[in-house]
Amino acid sequence: MSLTLHGYWRSSASYRVRIALNLKQLDYEYVPVHLVNNGGEQKSDAYQRLNPSKLVPTFVDSDADITLSQSLAIIEYLDEKYPEPCLLMPKHAQDRARVRMLAYDMACDTQPLANLRVLNRLKSDFDADDAAVKAWVQHWVTEGFNGLSKKIETRAGKYAYGYQVSLADICIVPQVYNALRFGVDMTAFPLIHKIYKNCTSLDAFAQAAPENQPDAV
Amino acid sequence: MSLTLHGYWRSSASYRVRIALNLKQLDYEYVPVHLVNNGGEQKSDAYQRLNPSKLVPTFVDSDADITLSQSLAIIEYLDEKYPEPCLLMPKHAQDRARVRMLAYDMACDTQPLANLRVLNRLKSDFDADDAAVKAWVQHWVTEGFNGLSKKIETRAGKYAYGYQVSLADICIVPQVYNALRFGVDMTAFPLIHKIYKNCTSLDAFAQAAPENQPDAV
Repeated sequence: MSLTLHGYWRSSASYRVRIALNLKQLDYEYVPVHLVNNGGEQKSDAYQRLNPSKLVPTFVDSDADITLSQSLAIIEYLDEKYPEPCLLMPKHAQDRARVRMLAYDMACDTQPLANLRVLNRLKSDFDADDAAVKAWVQHWVTEGFNGLSKKIETRAGKYAYGYQVSLADICIVPQVYNALRFGVDMTAFPLIHKIYKNCTSLDAFAQAAPENQPDAV
Repeated sequence: MSLTLHGYWRSSASYRVRIALNLKQLDYEYVPVHLVNNGGEQKSDAYQRLNPSKLVPTFVDSDADITLSQSLAIIEYLDEKYPEPCLLMPKHAQDRARVRMLAYDMACDTQPLANLRVLNRLKSDFDADDAAVKAWVQHWVTEGFNGLSKKIETRAGKYAYGYQVSLADICIVPQVYNALRFGVDMTAFPLIHKIYKNCTSLDAFAQAAPENQPDAV
């Protein structure tokens, strides 16, 4: 088995895949792709051959001869290929659909709007200063958490969907990490913050945290 | 069986679910939620009880007692629950992962940046005029299509992933529709445009098109 993750310490999507790999107890090689240095290493010819979207992460399973981008595609692939020691998706279709809904609330409607390349574009296109960029991130994260907190009310247990860690938690934790970094007031979202604390107390999440990566600044 | 789709004619995410429902040959009730009139009907108390994220679409399968938002969660649910007459996800894990990757290229990294609420926010936060908003959409759609067109090169057939319609096509078609609306030059992406034309010649896609919905203006 030979697994490689090309990622960046502070990328939410890379963080998600690291959590999943740790939960699956899979060894992998971590190859840092610095999104800022050298004009952005994700734009290099070598990296674009791996991932023409110029985004992190990219995951390579060389035994299976597959190269994948998109964190959620990678994580569902890992879950299908390595069901042990814990499933990240519930077994029943309805539960699985609800977990995906929560994950996409973060991965489609929240995180992409607070992405580094988007914030850079706000600066270059609209002369946005740091305060305006911060307000932009706070707005979208707050919107996302407002919806999410109501959606998880009924079924949250120790984690976002009951008492098993799922893809939903894997998407929520990096989003909260980002929210804290941008000064979002998490006291407005006590249930989400509780889930964040429950998750980050697990080794698999702690070891995946940005500050614990070799490329952390 | 009692299925209801709350959507908006021009919403890409609603369009995706309509395509999937048509491909599955499922009857459903369509309830328009006007995103502009009345201050945005998605913000009403009644709609927020259905979907606290204040976004379309929302799908209700009342026999199964499930209410779902997030188009891709809805579509994978439909695919699992109604495998006939055609599967939207390939059977093998690697193929499934690649199809999800292509779908997320559109659904996570492209469409959310060209969403109506985001464009409105550019106007309110940064005084963006119509030309600046158009340039913003063109930039992100071009970025998305640049990556996508290289990723599908090897495996595209009549459709984005071989010769079966998949979740990837369901995400690509509304994105091309949107691209054309915002004046993106599709001659730069001949393979994507070919797939768009092959898909939209199918009844399931044609009947799902925005202009064919009862709430189209």
